Amino acid sequence: MASSAPSSSNDAPDPTPPNLRPTTYDSWCGVAHGCTKKIGLKICDLLPSKNGEEQTMQFLLEVVDILLNYVRKTFDRSTKVLDFHHPHQLLEGMEGFNLELSDNPESLEQILVDCRDTLKYGVRTGHPRFFNQLSTGLDIIGLAGEWLTSTANTNMFTYEIAPVFVLMEQITLRKMREIIGWSNKDGDGIFSPGGAISNMYSIMAARYKYFPEVKTKGMAAVPKLVLFTSEHSHYSIKKAGAALGFGTDNVVLIKCNERGKIIPADLEAKILEAKEKGYVPLFVNATAGTTVYGAFDPIQEIADICEKYNLWLHVDAAWGGGLLMSRKHRHKLNGIERANSVTWNPHKMMGVLLQCSAILVREKGILQGCNQMCAGYLFQPDKQYDVSYDTGDKAIQCGRHVDIFKFWLMWKAKGTVGFENQINKCLELAEYLYTKIKNREEFEMVFEGEPEHTNVCFWYIPPSLRGMPDSDERREKLHRVAPKIKALMMESGTTMVGYQPQGDKVNFFRMVISNPAATKSDIDFLIEEIERLGQDL
Amino acid sequence: MASSAPSSSNDAPDPTPPNLRPTTYDSWCGVAHGCTKKIGLKICDLLPSKNGEEQTMQFLLEVVDILLNYVRKTFDRSTKVLDFHHPHQLLEGMEGFNLELSDNPESLEQILVDCRDTLKYGVRTGHPRFFNQLSTGLDIIGLAGEWLTSTANTNMFTYEIAPVFVLMEQITLRKMREIIGWSNKDGDGIFSPGGAISNMYSIMAARYKYFPEVKTKGMAAVPKLVLFTSEHSHYSIKKAGAALGFGTDNVVLIKCNERGKIIPADLEAKILEAKEKGYVPLFVNATAGTTVYGAFDPIQEIADICEKYNLWLHVDAAWGGGLLMSRKHRHKLNGIERANSVTWNPHKMMGVLLQCSAILVREKGILQGCNQMCAGYLFQPDKQYDVSYDTGDKAIQCGRHVDIFKFWLMWKAKGTVGFENQINKCLELAEYLYTKIKNREEFEMVFEGEPEHTNVCFWYIPPSLRGMPDSDERREKLHRVAPKIKALMMESGTTMVGYQPQGDKVNFFRMVISNPAATKSDIDFLIEEIERLGQDL
Repeated sequence: MASSAPSSSNDAPDPTPPNLRPTTYDSWCGVAHGCTKKIGLKICDLLPSKNGEEQTMQFLLEVVDILLNYVRKTFDRSTKVLDFHHPHQLLEGMEGFNLELSDNPESLEQILVDCRDTLKYGVRTGHPRFFNQLSTGLDIIGLAGEWLTSTANTNMFTYEIAPVFVLMEQITLRKMREIIGWSNKDGDGIFSPGGAISNMYSIMAARYKYFPEVKTKGMAAVPKLVLFTSEHSHYSIKKAGAALGFGTDNVVLIKCNERGKIIPADLEAKILEAKEKGYVPLFVNATAGTTVYGAFDPIQEIADICEKYNLWLHVDAAWGGGLLMSRKHRHKLNGIERANSVTWNPHKMMGVLLQCSAILVREKGILQGCNQMCAGYLFQPDKQYDVSYDTGDKAIQCGRHVDIFKFWLMWKAKGTVGFENQINKCLELAEYLYTKIKNREEFEMVFEGEPEHTNVCFWYIPPSLRGMPDSDERREKLHRVAPKIKALMMESGTTMVGYQPQGDKVNFFRMVISNPAATKSDIDFLIEEIERLGQDL
Repeated sequence: MASSAPSSSNDAPDPTPPNLRPTTYDSWCGVAHGCTKKIGLKICDLLPSKNGEEQTMQFLLEVVDILLNYVRKTFDRSTKVLDFHHPHQLLEGMEGFNLELSDNPESLEQILVDCRDTLKYGVRTGHPRFFNQLSTGLDIIGLAGEWLTSTANTNMFTYEIAPVFVLMEQITLRKMREIIGWSNKDGDGIFSPGGAISNMYSIMAARYKYFPEVKTKGMAAVPKLVLFTSEHSHYSIKKAGAALGFGTDNVVLIKCNERGKIIPADLEAKILEAKEKGYVPLFVNATAGTTVYGAFDPIQEIADICEKYNLWLHVDAAWGGGLLMSRKHRHKLNGIERANSVTWNPHKMMGVLLQCSAILVREKGILQGCNQMCAGYLFQPDKQYDVSYDTGDKAIQCGRHVDIFKFWLMWKAKGTVGFENQINKCLELAEYLYTKIKNREEFEMVFEGEPEHTNVCFWYIPPSLRGMPDSDERREKLHRVAPKIKALMMESGTTMVGYQPQGDKVNFFRMVISNPAATKSDIDFLIEEIERLGQDL
């Protein structure tokens, strides 16, 4: 902090204005103040110290100044997406930036440097050329909302200490259920720490619906239950199967067609197969927007099968749920209104800051029944307000971060139409990219046809591989192209896009667009950059 | 925003300086701009709009202004802790504050009003007189850290997109393991969304250690496993037992003594009982700082029993872990170094903002083994950096919020000694409160003896009940005292403290102190306020 610059002499008159002078020793944190003049202001000069108000405001404004600069640069295409360093480099310590923790306090001046350096060596996920994850962008309203959430620093478990946020969550979840198309006003839901946990909730809800005795007696008390999900679905279904005691062997993977969509006939065949073995099919996960291909499973046909065999239908729309906001694209999720539960992550396609994921359940009471333990010390029935607003007994968490406010505020600021336009625009950009590269010899599409979501999957074919017929050798070489380009891309810091293999397909790039700041010129840049970095491969 | 005040005439020359005028239509969000002059600036005037930079900075500074005012008031004892309203009141809409979401966007001016109102009708959890939860206070450095975290808006799952945060997590977890006293450098851990999930991790780790086949085959493939925890322990152990497929019947509650500590003999008896029934004891949870009494289970004796029967020992130090930072108080957790896993929530006693909870495991590799699914699209082995730094495959989450930075930054600013002093001070205040009320006729202590943690549990005895001998009638009346006082307290908004029944004890107040801003005068105030509100009962 400028006003707290070290003074070279302890005897010289203090040039600092009185209101910025370190206060005398204050008992709240007890750090000795003898050396403050030498090393600048310390945490004990801030609130709750008696005279800490002004210094607190000044300190926070200096932090905000750093953050605003970062925001500015995030949207500035002339800045890099990242300044890459290897773990050992950062661990050894960059100049003036030491990650190790010590017994003694740092000055506030150093704290500000630490803040600057933390951002400096990080990755600008809001940069218009960051295409690496499903969650990108830096929504300004969402950012303001998250700053407020931190400042309010409360917990979602009771209305008592989060009255406004609890109601915002209730209203937003109801709105989301309406958009899904559930006419029943009595649905339920909760915001959870990410799509994997939301998917876990869906399996718990299904199990409780059909076998409520599991809650008290455990999995040993029920027949062998089987879960179904596609081979392209998110790994969190399997992960939840392992955690919840089903076992991954009992998470049956359904085959997908060349576009990554579930083949309903294979689902039905595998359900019958499980039944023949004496297992009990419980739950089917349909994905609306797979992670790699962006594929939408045929929900109507899957719902027919679930109805026929009386299975719980979950739709993992973590990535694709945003398309429900678009009159143009929501048909891709037709049938979602027949689901028993839906995962929908506003922190992906809707650009809400991390994290913000909802699990929505059509039938009220299941989450509560499944998870409530009625802890007397938290959920007292004799409070003076209507305790049905308390959310804690629905959750597998106790304390729960306020994930709703940023989302609610963005919805207020954009309106439903704002989200619709933002999402339509991202899909148009994906279409632009697809059209641009589909017929060029430098690129090969991983699957045929227009993308349904913003995922565009492609191989870059370097000069040395062009025209070479398919062979093990070519595939091996091609497998190494994307990692090489990605490494060069990260070293140069100009843009970021993900790659991965899938099934028998060797490493390919998966482009996704969820950042409303991206434009056609950024797509052009990405393509040119891949060509530039790959030209000698 | 002052500069975007509505203009009464569309034809009058625009008095707004050019750089604050709404920009022309920008395609990124697509909201029509025809009416901006009437209703002020909109979200489309912010970044990523072409000329949005200045307005973005101005908007964010206006938000910060609101937040700084809130921070100021939080520490000001002349402001209320809360301005209580019932759910139906807030739902009907307060003047100018409507929680409902709409199709159309609001002006930025209204967004600022929404921010102000959200804080206005919330609860000041950082107020020096808020004693309602284990998590209280508003640490300024932590707040700055959380603002930065929101701005960086990234995800902990890979080093690729969170290099600095991933390393900070690693370093901080190692430091915490050292403080626990694990000499083995090869331990592990992860920050999770709250103590309940951390406790869930511990049970998963124990199960994987002894019965790794559960991961693939499910709970049906193993003998009936039993978990042990005390009747005073946190309900999340039972909740996890239900979720993970053990069943709550197989979570055996161990009796506690009058101070709320596990009776080791009862633990051993119940282990033997389970074995006799043919069940397999797996896991014992010892609590270091129970939620209500703040009791510390005798870890050494429990560890002896766990060693004898080869059981996993978990210590739930969510609340008490902070005391490890204090040379004066850490003896209360003696034996914790013998645990296989530890839950420790810096967001409780260490005053870190919500949320920040660590699960620490003594043996490396278990979290990874237990949870990894090796999703090729996220954890590519052919990245250019050392992918052992990626954390995603250890987690049950996929995306994971950055909970580490605020904690790391606070540690930097306070040093270990700063935390120590802060914690010692809170414990001194609890001692002060205990000494003050223990011999007064208006109060009755729930358990004898000095508090071990900052929990002080007491009944307020209103004039009408003083001197009345114990009877059902008196107990019934006393049961209604705390809820009545709490209701009046919330209506008046002056302070907040929790109450609950416990076992056969009727409703009593549970005072907890974790806010370094609290002083003796705040304790005095609480006592006077309870007396004032309860004098006519």
